[in-house]
Amino acid sequence: MDDLLLGMLDLSQRSDEALTRRLTDQLRTLIADGSLQPGQRLPSSRALARSLAISRNTVTRSIEQLATEGYLSVARSRRPVVAGGVSLAKGKQRGETTPVHAARFGLSPWARHLSDTGWPPVYDGRPRAFQPGLADEREFPHDVWGRCLRHAAGSAHRRPDRSHNAVALQEVLLHHVADNRGVRARPEQIIVVPSAQAGIALVAKVMIEAGDVAWMESPGYGGAFAALQAADAEVAGVPTDADGLIISGRKAPRLIFVTPSHQYPTGRLMPVGRRLELLHFAGSTGATIIEDDYDGEFHYEGRPVAALVGLDPSARVIYLGTFSKTMVSDVRVGYLVVPEALVPIFTLAQRHLGMLVSVTSQAALAEFIASGAYLSHVRRMTRLYRSRRDRLVQALAAEASDQLLVDSPAGGMQLLARLDGAVGDAELAERLEQSGVTVRPLSEMLYHKSKERGLFLGFAAWNDAEIDAGAQIIGRCIRRPRQSAGF
Amino acid sequence: MDDLLLGMLDLSQRSDEALTRRLTDQLRTLIADGSLQPGQRLPSSRALARSLAISRNTVTRSIEQLATEGYLSVARSRRPVVAGGVSLAKGKQRGETTPVHAARFGLSPWARHLSDTGWPPVYDGRPRAFQPGLADEREFPHDVWGRCLRHAAGSAHRRPDRSHNAVALQEVLLHHVADNRGVRARPEQIIVVPSAQAGIALVAKVMIEAGDVAWMESPGYGGAFAALQAADAEVAGVPTDADGLIISGRKAPRLIFVTPSHQYPTGRLMPVGRRLELLHFAGSTGATIIEDDYDGEFHYEGRPVAALVGLDPSARVIYLGTFSKTMVSDVRVGYLVVPEALVPIFTLAQRHLGMLVSVTSQAALAEFIASGAYLSHVRRMTRLYRSRRDRLVQALAAEASDQLLVDSPAGGMQLLARLDGAVGDAELAERLEQSGVTVRPLSEMLYHKSKERGLFLGFAAWNDAEIDAGAQIIGRCIRRPRQSAGF
Repeated sequence: MDDLLLGMLDLSQRSDEALTRRLTDQLRTLIADGSLQPGQRLPSSRALARSLAISRNTVTRSIEQLATEGYLSVARSRRPVVAGGVSLAKGKQRGETTPVHAARFGLSPWARHLSDTGWPPVYDGRPRAFQPGLADEREFPHDVWGRCLRHAAGSAHRRPDRSHNAVALQEVLLHHVADNRGVRARPEQIIVVPSAQAGIALVAKVMIEAGDVAWMESPGYGGAFAALQAADAEVAGVPTDADGLIISGRKAPRLIFVTPSHQYPTGRLMPVGRRLELLHFAGSTGATIIEDDYDGEFHYEGRPVAALVGLDPSARVIYLGTFSKTMVSDVRVGYLVVPEALVPIFTLAQRHLGMLVSVTSQAALAEFIASGAYLSHVRRMTRLYRSRRDRLVQALAAEASDQLLVDSPAGGMQLLARLDGAVGDAELAERLEQSGVTVRPLSEMLYHKSKERGLFLGFAAWNDAEIDAGAQIIGRCIRRPRQSAGF
Repeated sequence: MDDLLLGMLDLSQRSDEALTRRLTDQLRTLIADGSLQPGQRLPSSRALARSLAISRNTVTRSIEQLATEGYLSVARSRRPVVAGGVSLAKGKQRGETTPVHAARFGLSPWARHLSDTGWPPVYDGRPRAFQPGLADEREFPHDVWGRCLRHAAGSAHRRPDRSHNAVALQEVLLHHVADNRGVRARPEQIIVVPSAQAGIALVAKVMIEAGDVAWMESPGYGGAFAALQAADAEVAGVPTDADGLIISGRKAPRLIFVTPSHQYPTGRLMPVGRRLELLHFAGSTGATIIEDDYDGEFHYEGRPVAALVGLDPSARVIYLGTFSKTMVSDVRVGYLVVPEALVPIFTLAQRHLGMLVSVTSQAALAEFIASGAYLSHVRRMTRLYRSRRDRLVQALAAEASDQLLVDSPAGGMQLLARLDGAVGDAELAERLEQSGVTVRPLSEMLYHKSKERGLFLGFAAWNDAEIDAGAQIIGRCIRRPRQSAGF
């Protein structure tokens, strides 16, 4: 048996510590897979050390470790014995994992249907024109942000505050949203979450009882659909007109998700009449509104329109902000402004779900905003994105004005180019993808029965040359529809 | 009316832009609260500018903005008219928010009962001895970490990979867990989440259908209870013995949450016999195991014991790791190692719930680990924490050996000091809190009917002087029980 054991061990030259580890691992494997049987005695540590040409200390440490873990029984001056009941089922070799399929795991109904939602859309490789939702990362002052991060990390141990929502960020942010978005609140009403998506999911989890109705705009934001569904809401896509969501007599909702600054995806501003109608409706039905202000800071005609929440005297609106659009998507900080009465519940809910953001990142963000770097970047991007919007509108007009109806948005980072209802926008998007241009078909953003078709294009992240080249590709693809592979 | 209007406006001296904003805000408020009635005409912009002693451009910009928002109707060479249907309900003044209570909001059943769970425990102010779960932040190389963050932020725009789980971190981490925790996997099996808590919540959400049974150890980790409950599991606290969770014939679970490296809170190692029993049980009942390895890297006798997941040939175990204990809690990075078959589902689930971590933070962590800084910190802390464990065990023996039964843990950052079952540990903890020492009563960590009582103490974050002083306070409080306020 001793020779047999030696034949199973392979200890190439390593440091003492590495040797101990390797010997321990190999012995453990041999015991676990049944090569060494319960009750079997190992050689003495002296003999083992000599045979393997390693130090006796190494062997002793291995044996002690395996005794601690329960694989070996040791008694003073006896050879170690393999413990009973430590081998895996006969025939199963360790390390040889059985291939298993997801179906073997009992998944929740939600998890089973995740892949049916089609959200998020999958974009392979580096982003290219006109993938929606992206800021221009090339324009972002990465070095300034890096300095803020380093500074925040370096002063972490001097931070007096232990709150998960950093008071420094809450205060700076509050000042910012009051000045720029017309949002009035107290600092503790700001709940900092790892992404806007987490923010919607958190609100839904706090407000929705399984089967409750939630409204979202249609066409609308797929992420909201996903987050509402995760809370087991019955999600209703509500048709929109030029003013936004059409309030109607359908089943009263518990939650209403809207994008009043720039409707997603049409880019339209919800005028005050519809805003008040919405607030009245929420008040009379007891619904809560989530106002997603994802890119409300980029407004090109006049100054940014004040947020809906600022109009709301009865705390019916939960405001959702993010830095993914105004900075870069990787910042991974979103925030909610919740009604005062709900602060304790949201703070707990956030902890229970672990939706926390490093306070170091929050402190860095507070410094980035307080120093003025944030606002100056937003202003510079507003000018840049406006010119890119104009460029794309002109380029599309030049290339495909007969086929695309472009509604130049008053703000934001993307635009919707409508197609004649007979054109298959998904098929067109697919052909564009193959030709080097990324767009999102409108039909994939519809949450009610509708014949609307169109292409959703981001313009913020690409320079003039990229915009022109992309528009030319769109023009070519649209002019020569259904070009078969045989051409 | 014009004078009336002027009396309502207050424009202190500001920059042009600030003046425009202020005028716009005030006019909007007057319209929304009904002070200006629908159909009412404003003075001409020229007249308004003269009366307010501001530039006509400022007034014009304000009026254009309000027209965009829908508050005013404007027509060429006519005075602006207040639009209809833009005032809030009569009697409700804007800005005067009605005080509302949480009960007015329709909350989910989960949210309504959040505060009943008693988790997380609330510790006010700066942490002090012996608050459990804390690493010593004073010993952490904040400057090195800050440089990693800055470097990662600075090179963000050159990152080729667009994945939300950074490939660089997945690879480094995999190497680390293979070497140090015996975990074998492919990089894509690592799912990076904002906290270990988010990791448990994510697994529960993916695996649990409402009403499914989930097991956790009792005494056990309250965070697991919270996260399992958030997924509507029926959580069963399963009694433990010296080897860990006692597998019994109760209702078969869908999920089993365990802490095999150092049972939370007893600190005991689950020996291989119980590990295999658990794996067999999971295999035969179709249960999935969450192995929370929160501080498995700090092991003081022998080297860290290999993780349970490494023993598991049938992919029944989801491994959960965190950097909150080995670095500092504020790092806010946790990770799951999920079975290969579940990678697509977990990746989607993570997106739908927005449980994302900045790739910059992930890249910084990858650099911190790859550079060796991580392992060298863990090794240094292992030596330090071992000596602190010994110090606390000795100090408690000196101060209260007759009342406290201390089980010196083989690893980890905290220990359990058992009390005679007749002693009220919650009441004792309360008295200690008032005397300047923080402990967690064992009774608050029990999830089955049990008379076990004790104090749970963290020893990692405090130096010898703090440990001695804290132990003296404990000794005093225990020796003089129920000292009334009258003394």
